[in-house]
Amino acid sequence: MKVSGKHFRTIWLKPDDQRVVHLIDQRFLPHHFIIEEVRTVEEMAAAIRDMHVRGAGLIGASAGYGMYLGAIEAICDRAVAGFDEHIACAAAQLSATRPTAVNLSWAIERQLKSIATAKTAEEKIAVALHTAELIADEDAEHCRMIGQHGSKLIREFAQRKSGPINVLTHCNAGWLAFVDYGSATAPIYAAHDNGLPLHVWVTETRPRNQGSKLTAWELGQHGVPHAVIADSAAGHLMQRGEVDLVIVGSDRTTYTGDVANKIGTYLEAVAAKANNIPFYVALPSSSIDWKMRDGLQEIPIEERGIDEIKFADGWFDGQRISVRIAPSESPAVNYGFDVTPRHLVTGLITERGVCEANEKSICSVFPEHAP
Amino acid sequence: MKVSGKHFRTIWLKPDDQRVVHLIDQRFLPHHFIIEEVRTVEEMAAAIRDMHVRGAGLIGASAGYGMYLGAIEAICDRAVAGFDEHIACAAAQLSATRPTAVNLSWAIERQLKSIATAKTAEEKIAVALHTAELIADEDAEHCRMIGQHGSKLIREFAQRKSGPINVLTHCNAGWLAFVDYGSATAPIYAAHDNGLPLHVWVTETRPRNQGSKLTAWELGQHGVPHAVIADSAAGHLMQRGEVDLVIVGSDRTTYTGDVANKIGTYLEAVAAKANNIPFYVALPSSSIDWKMRDGLQEIPIEERGIDEIKFADGWFDGQRISVRIAPSESPAVNYGFDVTPRHLVTGLITERGVCEANEKSICSVFPEHAP
Repeated sequence: MKVSGKHFRTIWLKPDDQRVVHLIDQRFLPHHFIIEEVRTVEEMAAAIRDMHVRGAGLIGASAGYGMYLGAIEAICDRAVAGFDEHIACAAAQLSATRPTAVNLSWAIERQLKSIATAKTAEEKIAVALHTAELIADEDAEHCRMIGQHGSKLIREFAQRKSGPINVLTHCNAGWLAFVDYGSATAPIYAAHDNGLPLHVWVTETRPRNQGSKLTAWELGQHGVPHAVIADSAAGHLMQRGEVDLVIVGSDRTTYTGDVANKIGTYLEAVAAKANNIPFYVALPSSSIDWKMRDGLQEIPIEERGIDEIKFADGWFDGQRISVRIAPSESPAVNYGFDVTPRHLVTGLITERGVCEANEKSICSVFPEHAP
Repeated sequence: MKVSGKHFRTIWLKPDDQRVVHLIDQRFLPHHFIIEEVRTVEEMAAAIRDMHVRGAGLIGASAGYGMYLGAIEAICDRAVAGFDEHIACAAAQLSATRPTAVNLSWAIERQLKSIATAKTAEEKIAVALHTAELIADEDAEHCRMIGQHGSKLIREFAQRKSGPINVLTHCNAGWLAFVDYGSATAPIYAAHDNGLPLHVWVTETRPRNQGSKLTAWELGQHGVPHAVIADSAAGHLMQRGEVDLVIVGSDRTTYTGDVANKIGTYLEAVAAKANNIPFYVALPSSSIDWKMRDGLQEIPIEERGIDEIKFADGWFDGQRISVRIAPSESPAVNYGFDVTPRHLVTGLITERGVCEANEKSICSVFPEHAP
């Protein structure tokens, strides 16, 4: 998507030196737009672990490029150790960065299988490069298709009312979380680019504020009208008729339609239901868990550090700093995600089209995965 | 309630000099406990306007003491202007501080009527002092009674389960918002002081964080077990059975039972209903609007400055500073309150007892106000 009028992906090869990977260092957004050069497996592992890059799709793509950098290193170091040993080491190093991210291990496995098909070291590097580009391209293409299907939905809403369609989204399921387009934002960008009048309510998404820091920034850069709100204002806006539909992303969705997403998604889903507002989840099929039947019982909910609750970080006088909000003695609890049960979900927007949030509908769209 | 083991009200006369009013300057909590000395109407007006004091009950009590200071000034200045002119001027100055707060005008009117009954200037001062103390004492007594009635409710929950009762509250309807005890916190303090095992979920209450800054502090000072959570975690906790009941305060409740309270209350009420969790509103009858029938249609919702959304303020290196969260170019919207319709409210806890959130039940408890 666009930054200051120019198209960017979140990760790409340096045009004049294919041994270098470029990525947007998201830690400094929305205050600074910094492009980082990554040349080694160790640097890529640090970028994933320390959240220079984050988001399901982008973590997968970063791991793919990380394995390609590993193949280059394996050639340079082959006097020291065998190529295969070096590649296995790179895989282990990248795997250890975010142990719970599904896309990470999926991308590493895919690279290991591809590399194993090549014979010479030079062929292995070429295959690793091709696979890294393929992973990134597929991610972008899946998100683009989500945008196509989702924008048709938005067009239907637009035909039924005058004035802009008000979409509410939560957290950042934007292009910054993928390679391009995003999941929840893809229908928004596609509709906007097609000239549909849109306005997006961006929940700030405490405690890490991915809404106000990332989603507001990327919508603003692409020229999509939006406004940031406190998470707690979502219900009021729905009650007053200020929200036409909700589109959120998902960290993991069961094949039965239960949706794990950023903490607060469930509250929005309950309020949407109470106010008869359609609640859609946009996700590439890579986020569907084909083994899990009961999301409430089975999806593990990450508890994160409590300093995220007791402090707020932002910018002051050119510096990124954390200010203390709560008493130092007060305990806090910080759940990262919640689960929205399928009966609150109007539909899933996938790369193959929109389906209902139930086993029958999901498996009819992805029959090859049906358990 | 207790601060570092010692009992405090939020406002009181200086023991050895009755011409001075003491109040807790809440702007510095939870980081510094500062007692401010207020000697003039102008100083009291600034304390209310600049939110050294806030909360319905405390604003009323502060205005009461402000009028008493006005009476003292009127005596000292009587060579310059008449006593009545001076008192009228004090009333106007105090009224202009927070134009929408109902308790403010109510307390000022009450003082004007009381002062008018006295003959000499000295009598007028004595009457103003008596009335100021009466307003504060009544506020404390009403909150104490809310605590008595509400703690009976909590005891009933305690009899039905083992382990601590988990109460969720929102914003600060604590003793800091009144003269003592608070509204939503009064049942919690009474139950805790009676030895009932309790644990309180404190929502941080963005954007002003009255939950993490004030409620967590006062619960901690009084020794009540609690934990701060992001506002968006309330639904997840309810869904997982971690909330036994919700008690919130109210800025204004219609005589038909619709409840205006801090933004986010409505989301919690919807989620409580969806999870069969009792949702109570604790309020002195001074917060009931006896003229308003339809809360959703009639209660005006204050829109506040958007810097509250785009920044977060807290403490860093001994200083209170605001850090920027959102892009400077992004618009934002900041509603201060929302309205919870009566059908989501399990009951109202008032100084006269618990009633249902409907006209018949409310008017049977307060027949003298029935429209």
